[in-house]
Amino acid sequence: MEGEIARTGSHIKAMAKFAVLGFGVVGSGVVELFYKNKAHIEEKAGQEMDVKYILDIRQFPASPYKDKIVASIDPILEDPEVTAIAECMGGVEPAFTYVKACLERGKSVSTSNKELVAQKGAELLALAAEKNCNFFFEASVGGAIPIIRPLHKCLAANDISGVAGILNGTTNFILTKMIRDKMQFADALALAQKLGYAEKDPTADVEGLDACRKICIISSLVFGKHVYPKDVYTKGIADIALEDVELAGHLGGAVKLIASVQRQADGRILPAVMPMFVSYDNLISRVDDVFNAIMVYGDAIDKTMFYGRGAGKFPTASAVLGDVIDAVKHARTVFSQAWEPSDDNRFLAPIAERTSRMYLKVSKCDPQQMFRKLYDFYASQKIAVDAQLSLARLKDGENIAFLTPTELTEAQCDMLVAQMTTGGIQVISRMPVLN
Amino acid sequence: MEGEIARTGSHIKAMAKFAVLGFGVVGSGVVELFYKNKAHIEEKAGQEMDVKYILDIRQFPASPYKDKIVASIDPILEDPEVTAIAECMGGVEPAFTYVKACLERGKSVSTSNKELVAQKGAELLALAAEKNCNFFFEASVGGAIPIIRPLHKCLAANDISGVAGILNGTTNFILTKMIRDKMQFADALALAQKLGYAEKDPTADVEGLDACRKICIISSLVFGKHVYPKDVYTKGIADIALEDVELAGHLGGAVKLIASVQRQADGRILPAVMPMFVSYDNLISRVDDVFNAIMVYGDAIDKTMFYGRGAGKFPTASAVLGDVIDAVKHARTVFSQAWEPSDDNRFLAPIAERTSRMYLKVSKCDPQQMFRKLYDFYASQKIAVDAQLSLARLKDGENIAFLTPTELTEAQCDMLVAQMTTGGIQVISRMPVLN
Repeated sequence: MEGEIARTGSHIKAMAKFAVLGFGVVGSGVVELFYKNKAHIEEKAGQEMDVKYILDIRQFPASPYKDKIVASIDPILEDPEVTAIAECMGGVEPAFTYVKACLERGKSVSTSNKELVAQKGAELLALAAEKNCNFFFEASVGGAIPIIRPLHKCLAANDISGVAGILNGTTNFILTKMIRDKMQFADALALAQKLGYAEKDPTADVEGLDACRKICIISSLVFGKHVYPKDVYTKGIADIALEDVELAGHLGGAVKLIASVQRQADGRILPAVMPMFVSYDNLISRVDDVFNAIMVYGDAIDKTMFYGRGAGKFPTASAVLGDVIDAVKHARTVFSQAWEPSDDNRFLAPIAERTSRMYLKVSKCDPQQMFRKLYDFYASQKIAVDAQLSLARLKDGENIAFLTPTELTEAQCDMLVAQMTTGGIQVISRMPVLN
Repeated sequence: MEGEIARTGSHIKAMAKFAVLGFGVVGSGVVELFYKNKAHIEEKAGQEMDVKYILDIRQFPASPYKDKIVASIDPILEDPEVTAIAECMGGVEPAFTYVKACLERGKSVSTSNKELVAQKGAELLALAAEKNCNFFFEASVGGAIPIIRPLHKCLAANDISGVAGILNGTTNFILTKMIRDKMQFADALALAQKLGYAEKDPTADVEGLDACRKICIISSLVFGKHVYPKDVYTKGIADIALEDVELAGHLGGAVKLIASVQRQADGRILPAVMPMFVSYDNLISRVDDVFNAIMVYGDAIDKTMFYGRGAGKFPTASAVLGDVIDAVKHARTVFSQAWEPSDDNRFLAPIAERTSRMYLKVSKCDPQQMFRKLYDFYASQKIAVDAQLSLARLKDGENIAFLTPTELTEAQCDMLVAQMTTGGIQVISRMPVLN
C-alpha cells in the first residue's frame, strides 16, 4: 500500500488518505460523517485515515475544511498518498474524465453518481480491473441501503430471475401523500419541493429517469451486460390521478412507482420503470414516505428485500464511506463485479412483452356492458377465464376500476383497450399489477 | 492459492475444492445448489470449483454424491487441495473441534451453525485471523438474508445504536396463524410441526433460544465484544394467548417475537428476546409467515431493514455458498470482522433497565378504577402524563388491554403491576412495545 506510515502508541499503522470530489450535499456529508465517526471508521479500516483534498470549483471560506479544498483534479492525481477517491459530483462530465484519470493511476473510486454508472459503468469497471483497483458504487442505488454488495456477494450462489422495487424516494413521498392524505399530485409535489425532497425542476424524479438509471445499474450487475437508460421503457407518475390511488386502495393495493427487471423465458431481460398496482400482500406496498425498498428474486432465496432511506446527505454518505473503507482496507484486492459492454440491445425484451395482471380504469358505464366487452376480448384471444372479477367505484355511476382476471402482455392489453374503445367503453388509465 | 491448475479451453484457471461437513438438510442443500448453479458460481468465483468431500457418519447409498462421503474429518484436514469448508453440522461439538482443526490448517470455514458462532465465535475468528484465512457465518443469522456482511461492510461508516427484528421463522409462522386465522397457540404449533417448520421438540424455537443465539451473534459483531446466550434475557411465545394477539390488533399492532439489542446511554448494551407489541406503522409488523426481518439503526442511515427467508434448505445453502465463493475468490484476504472475547458481562445492561412503552392486559374490572390506579402510579413516580389512553376489549365486561402512555423501564413496570395488584386489578399479561 502506498501512503505514509504513522506511529501511534506502541504499534505502527498505515495511514490512508482519500480525496472527495464535489463538496455539495453528498460530498460534504462524506466529510462530516468521516470526522464524526473517525475512530470507529479507522478501526473498521484497520488503519488511520484522513481526507487530504476536497475538489470543488466553489469556495467555502466558512468551512472548517476550507484548507483541503482544491479547484483542480491535478494535485489529487499527482499525489501518491491519495489511494482512494469518493466521487460525489453527479452528472457524467467532468466526473467521467476525473474518475477515469483516478483509476488509470490505480486509485480506487467510490461513487454516488448513478448517472455516471448507468452511462459508463462497464468501461470504468474494466479500467479498474485492468489497473488492479476498485470502482465501487454502492451509493448509486438505494442510498443508505446495502444492495450492490449483497447482490454480487451474498446472493452469488443464486440464479437471480428478477428485481423489483421502489428506487426513488421523491415519487414515493408524493404517492404516500396522495394515499394517506388524499393530496392531489400537484400539491404533494409542491410539498416535496418545500421539504427539500424534490428539486425545483423535478423532472428526473417525477418522470422516472432517476429510477431508470438505478434499475439500469442493477440490471447490468445482475445480468452481466450493460443496460443503457435510453433502452428502458420509463413512465413517471405525473399522470396518476388521486382517483386511481383511491380506487387501488379499494381493490386492495397501493400505487407505487416500480423499477423492475425480469428475465424472460428466452433469456432476454426486460427492465422497465412504471407506476404499478402493488397488492397489500406484498411488503413493498407498505414502504412509505421517502423510503426505498428493493425485492430480489432468486432460485435459492425465493425473495429477499432491502429497505431504507434511498437518498439524503448522510444516508448516501454512509454508503460512499462504506465503499471507501473497503477500498482502503483491501487496497490490492479487486472486488468489483464487472459486466460486459453491450453494442446492441437485442438482449433486452420490449415492453410489449411484459406480462402481468393489469389495473384498468374505465369511464362511467354500465358494469354489465363493461364485463361483456372484457369477456368478449378473452374469448377472442382464446384465454380461459374463471376468476371472479372485483371492481371498485368511488360512487355509483362513477368511473370503474378493476384488475384483469388473468395476466396479459402489454401488447394484449393494448388490444383490450382498443376493443373496449370500439365498444364504447373508454379506458382512462391502466397500469401493471406487480407480480 | 493452493489447488490444482486445470486447463479449460484456451486459458488456464485455478480449481478450488471445498468440503461440506454434515449432509443433513442444509449440507445437502449446499451440494445440490452448488451443482445446480455451478457455471454461474464458478463465474462469480473466477475459477472452477468442486465439492471434494462430504463428511457424515451416516451412509447415503442412493445419493449421487455417495462417492464423496467420508466418515472422518482426517482426509479433509490432510488434503491440501481442500481450501474451503462449508460447516453445516449444527451443535457445538464435534463442529467446534473440526472447525478449529480446519482453520489451524489455513482452510477458510463458512458455517450455518448459530450455536457454534454464539458460543465460540470470538475464539474461531481470532484463530482464522492468526492463520490468515476466513471464518464466515452469514448463514448463521437470517438464513438467506444478507445481514452479516452488510452490517460489517456496507454500514461500516455508521455508529450503529441498535438492531431489532424477527430472527426465528417458526415462531413468526405460529404468531401469523394466530393473528390471521385466529388459531390457538397449540394448534398453530401443531400445524408448524406438520409442515416441517417446527421440530418435534420445538423448545429451541418456541422458548426463544434460537433467536437468542442469533441476537448474540449480531450483538457481538456490532458492538465488538462476545455476548453469550446465557447472559441474554430470553422469553418465548408459549404464554401468548390468542386474546393478546386480538387485543393487540385492536390497539393497532401485531405481536411478534423480537430479538433486539440496543446501546444504553452509558455505553452498556442490552440484548433481549421477548414477545413485543409492534405498531402497524413499523414495517416489522407486516413481516409474516416464516419470513425474518432485521432492522438496523445507525446515525447516518437512520434505519435500514433486511427481509427474507430465515431458514430452510436452499435459503440457508445460498448464504453458505455465498461465503464459500468469497473464501475461494479471495483466498489470501482476511475479511472476517473479529470481536473481542468477554470475560465478564459487565458490558451488558440487565433487563430491568430496558425502557419502552408497555402493553398490559388486566382482568375484567371497572375501566375508571383501572385508570385511577394507573394515574396513581404515575403520580407516585412523579412522571407527567398527558397522553390520551386508548384501551381495547373484545367484549364489554371482558379483560382490558392498553398501552402505557409513557415509556417505563421493566423495573418500573414491575412496580406498576405490583401497585395494580395491591389495588385489586390483576395484570394477566404484559409485553414491551417495540420502539
